[in-house]
Amino acid sequence: MSFRASVLTLYPEMFPGALGLSLAGRALEAGVWSLEAVQIRDFATDRHRTVDDTPAGGGAGMVMRADILAKAIDHAAPQGDPRPLLLMSPRGRPLTQARVRELAAGPGAVILCGRFEGVDQRVIEARGLEEVSIGDFILSGGEPAALVLLDAVVRLLPGVMGNDASGDEESFENGLLEHPHYTRPQEFEGRPIPDVLISGNHAKIAAWRREQALKLTQERRPDLLSGREQAASGKKNAPEA
Amino acid sequence: MSFRASVLTLYPEMFPGALGLSLAGRALEAGVWSLEAVQIRDFATDRHRTVDDTPAGGGAGMVMRADILAKAIDHAAPQGDPRPLLLMSPRGRPLTQARVRELAAGPGAVILCGRFEGVDQRVIEARGLEEVSIGDFILSGGEPAALVLLDAVVRLLPGVMGNDASGDEESFENGLLEHPHYTRPQEFEGRPIPDVLISGNHAKIAAWRREQALKLTQERRPDLLSGREQAASGKKNAPEA
Repeated sequence: MSFRASVLTLYPEMFPGALGLSLAGRALEAGVWSLEAVQIRDFATDRHRTVDDTPAGGGAGMVMRADILAKAIDHAAPQGDPRPLLLMSPRGRPLTQARVRELAAGPGAVILCGRFEGVDQRVIEARGLEEVSIGDFILSGGEPAALVLLDAVVRLLPGVMGNDASGDEESFENGLLEHPHYTRPQEFEGRPIPDVLISGNHAKIAAWRREQALKLTQERRPDLLSGREQAASGKKNAPEA
Repeated sequence: MSFRASVLTLYPEMFPGALGLSLAGRALEAGVWSLEAVQIRDFATDRHRTVDDTPAGGGAGMVMRADILAKAIDHAAPQGDPRPLLLMSPRGRPLTQARVRELAAGPGAVILCGRFEGVDQRVIEARGLEEVSIGDFILSGGEPAALVLLDAVVRLLPGVMGNDASGDEESFENGLLEHPHYTRPQEFEGRPIPDVLISGNHAKIAAWRREQALKLTQERRPDLLSGREQAASGKKNAPEA
């Protein structure tokens, strides 16, 4: 059974977008996954197809209505649909590669893309939506975030990546940022490839790469490292074993 | 002078994509910003238009060549181009709303989208590329991340958002996740809008929203809160003033 994505949006024409090209696009054509974009306005009840209203208690912006979103969700995922219901939102828990892997191992996802000021809290609670954030920044809507989430998931589906091995060594798969890469030419603007990498000594190469990955992670993402170290040793700032 | 984005990619047809619609699309049409997608393969030197080669030192995947990327970068951003050179990469520093605001206040951005295993380290160093990550997950390439970055930036450009005020209160703009929203109908599936929001008491409403935002941030993103509190008081786990 292939991975089924349903995206609820005011801009169905944004999909498949970038997901219709490259690896994800070929997998879509091949039926490895499917994508349905549902227009939320189709579930509005007035002739202006209104989906939002002013916030209770006042304030700027508009809020997407619970009743209309509930109808769109129930249409895309009828009772018994086993797929998780996600809401792309900067209020959500940050997306991790571990959650991406879980999603890729499941039957698919129903993804609600918020717009305007936000979504009525009651539909989040009544339908048990999982709020997912892709980062600490604000987008015009959930759609670019949904594209990112699906891209991350689809590349892990069986048969999508040409070279399965390259999925395993990348940043976050082992809790470190990835070491630097080099390729031909041997010299570029006076900068040679580091000697160790052309030494042919595989143990030395592996040690150098690990050291570089650790150094880069320490510099840029000490948060990743302290999580690892705490998990491994129960101590903070313990040296890496 | 309008904001100029140049995206260097193997998939120029992914752009403008979602950025050609909605707010960003209207701003693009209106000339508030411009977008140029540059095909990296146009700077290859062989008849197969090769842009990558095997990693020095061995390993899975392919690495994008420094010499070819440098030519593409120098074409898009000749000497003296004031725009920052960004590389979308999971090895980068995480994108923040503060960096988004800085970029939106500047002349534009040149964005290199990596593919395959990565990019030769020497072009990152030689051209001073700023590696930017949108989160701790792996994408098929930098393109979906570039779409996200540009979406976040473009909505902050002058004249893009219909209601400027709604930009200010959102998640991360004040260091907290946003409070829950409600709108009509007054009752949804037996769930009423909280009384305080229909009380008309603006001070009470503001206090309730702040309390909710704080509670949500404590639950989901204690990392945001401890950064704020440390900055404010120099102490950890200090109660919110």
